[in-house]
Amino acid sequence: MQADIITIGDELLIGQTINTNAAWIGQQLSLVGIAIGRSTTISDGKQEILDCFAESINRSELVIVTGGLGPTKDDITKEVLCAFFDTELEMKEDVLLRIKEFFEKRGKEMLPSNYEQAELPKSCIVLDNFIGTASGMWFENNGRILVSIPGVPYEMKALMTEEILPRAKSYFSVKGMYHQTLMTQGIGESFLAQKIEDWENRIYKDGLSLAYLPSPGVVKLRLTSKHGNKDAEMIDTYFKELEKEYPKYVYGRNGVTIFDVVGQLLRSKGKTLCTVESCTAGGIASAFVESPGASDFLLGGIISYSNAVKISEVGVAAETIEKFGAVSEETVIEMARGGKRKLKSDYCIAVSGVAGPDGGSEEKPVGFIWCAIAHPDGVCTRQFQFGSDRGRNLEMTALSAANVLRRVLLGLVD
Amino acid sequence: MQADIITIGDELLIGQTINTNAAWIGQQLSLVGIAIGRSTTISDGKQEILDCFAESINRSELVIVTGGLGPTKDDITKEVLCAFFDTELEMKEDVLLRIKEFFEKRGKEMLPSNYEQAELPKSCIVLDNFIGTASGMWFENNGRILVSIPGVPYEMKALMTEEILPRAKSYFSVKGMYHQTLMTQGIGESFLAQKIEDWENRIYKDGLSLAYLPSPGVVKLRLTSKHGNKDAEMIDTYFKELEKEYPKYVYGRNGVTIFDVVGQLLRSKGKTLCTVESCTAGGIASAFVESPGASDFLLGGIISYSNAVKISEVGVAAETIEKFGAVSEETVIEMARGGKRKLKSDYCIAVSGVAGPDGGSEEKPVGFIWCAIAHPDGVCTRQFQFGSDRGRNLEMTALSAANVLRRVLLGLVD
Repeated sequence: MQADIITIGDELLIGQTINTNAAWIGQQLSLVGIAIGRSTTISDGKQEILDCFAESINRSELVIVTGGLGPTKDDITKEVLCAFFDTELEMKEDVLLRIKEFFEKRGKEMLPSNYEQAELPKSCIVLDNFIGTASGMWFENNGRILVSIPGVPYEMKALMTEEILPRAKSYFSVKGMYHQTLMTQGIGESFLAQKIEDWENRIYKDGLSLAYLPSPGVVKLRLTSKHGNKDAEMIDTYFKELEKEYPKYVYGRNGVTIFDVVGQLLRSKGKTLCTVESCTAGGIASAFVESPGASDFLLGGIISYSNAVKISEVGVAAETIEKFGAVSEETVIEMARGGKRKLKSDYCIAVSGVAGPDGGSEEKPVGFIWCAIAHPDGVCTRQFQFGSDRGRNLEMTALSAANVLRRVLLGLVD
Repeated sequence: MQADIITIGDELLIGQTINTNAAWIGQQLSLVGIAIGRSTTISDGKQEILDCFAESINRSELVIVTGGLGPTKDDITKEVLCAFFDTELEMKEDVLLRIKEFFEKRGKEMLPSNYEQAELPKSCIVLDNFIGTASGMWFENNGRILVSIPGVPYEMKALMTEEILPRAKSYFSVKGMYHQTLMTQGIGESFLAQKIEDWENRIYKDGLSLAYLPSPGVVKLRLTSKHGNKDAEMIDTYFKELEKEYPKYVYGRNGVTIFDVVGQLLRSKGKTLCTVESCTAGGIASAFVESPGASDFLLGGIISYSNAVKISEVGVAAETIEKFGAVSEETVIEMARGGKRKLKSDYCIAVSGVAGPDGGSEEKPVGFIWCAIAHPDGVCTRQFQFGSDRGRNLEMTALSAANVLRRVLLGLVD
């Protein structure tokens, strides 16, 4: 049993929009044990859509299509669906009622194009969209399913979660691949592979497969079993081995972020955190609040982008900056101590660095970062040298600083 | 002339990694006038890769393939390329030398798997990768090109920019679609479509095509000409019409962010900015530093996540929070004024809101946000009601607050 994903839109092809929908749908299908055949992005031309529908429904039992259902003239998916399934549009009165309510609730007038959104193909099962105006459509054809849903991410997600996944699970008898992922940080892909070579050979002998998934700062190890969750315990045992042997690198499982792991450690110890951020300008603190509940440990922070703010709001000595520079071990130590003292937190992360692309020197090139963690027993510092890409440097700074704090909290730092 | 994009990797299919590579490649090809046929994501199985290579090279003159070139055992693209082009691997001494230098420079030892990365298909032109260990491979076959490059984004980007795009432009005679995009914020897709209906009908008569590209808070309008940049001036004139008529909504062109636009306005006026952020916890300031040069206008800010920090570091009166709540017009006004005064900036953005998923009440439900802008002549406030998704609420808060500041800077606010 496998599914194909089709995402329609020139904006995806020409990269004006990053295709987060395909990723999310793949993730959800995979979680319920449905394998993904292919994920194809196509332009919104009629023939191209028809061709791709035919290929996908030939390859996979379930085809999920997003995009091209909006109220504007460039949205043609509904028309193409009628051609593909040899049916025609009809006004669905219950859908019209729902759309009318949608607009009334928001105190907005309904436009003629919104009335047209209640016209749907005769032969489909309508999937009600309660947070938008474009309905989902479920077509059955010789035991195969094609579903068309809007491309607006939160509408897509609601329809997937509430309608499509439950229906798909009951329609097909689902039993599939089983994945678990181990998250590592602070070690490159080849070096990790060398360290765990024996372990890797053993997992192959046990019939599991392994993938290395590198992203900036992070290498994920994904173990896959083809026997559903029958091998869950074996995979768990294999991961426990690595967790025990490499606690410096291994920080969690299954897509958890380093920020969530550190947040959970602080929460469990009843300790508080603040940040004093120069180059990242709040990027570290805001990464901690991406998950709910950060108020359990995060008090706040100071964005000391200019030297004046480092001095007036954090209490860094002007002489320190003058003598050692804003990007120096001495300055980040004072930033971390100052933040901890002023905001009355147990821990403080401070960073200062040359994010680039300009501002580098021979001594402190672009990507040169100092990080300090003030903790109840003192201050711990680390220097990083990242690359030439500004965005990547800022991201790596946040991840690496969080990992230093994780090691401090676990007593893994000398 | 068109190109296909193939991205290889189970991690993409099952959504563990978002496919930013396909977006970036599509963008770059499109910018040099190469249309995109299809973008396909496939698993790293040998037969699936062979099938997809055959389909794509049949459909498009240029095929760009990323992924599966790493040093670990799950990387099989090189082997499949040999099978597809009926060739074999050979040790490339110059590539080996480059890889050796790569490791020496970084003071790291070279692993056996890295030696193997110098073994490349006989029949390909090697594209040197100076920032990683996996080379690019350029295959020519009956006037069609297939290129294989690593999936690590910054290595992929360097090879695309320095090797593939210049070669492709000279190999094919390139003349293609021409796109321009207008960015709008603060108005929904259907309402925008209704406002500009006459304009839209006129552009169709002139042979242009229009796409609405909605994303959280932003609707982009993309005008496309099929005659290369011959219609550039006409598109410019059409966009100028909307810029003049709807300055409240239209904030820029071609993917510029609202933060870059506001930064440029501040820079041109020689004015400074700080932020005082509760729910976003630094997300607004960090959005301003994603582009280089933010130190021209950004002094810093205070992340006042807890009430204690609002009081001690920003100077909000405890009674204000007690009487009106942390999420109130009164509190954000004091936050904005306090930040401006303490950090000595010309402008200050302050936000406080209920990001969710918990913490909502009947009076202040999840998604309820207050924003204040302190400016040289006073304070301007706005209240927003977003939805139930935490990440989206934080993103919308940052975008909307920046747009309020843009309107203040342009004198568009009463």
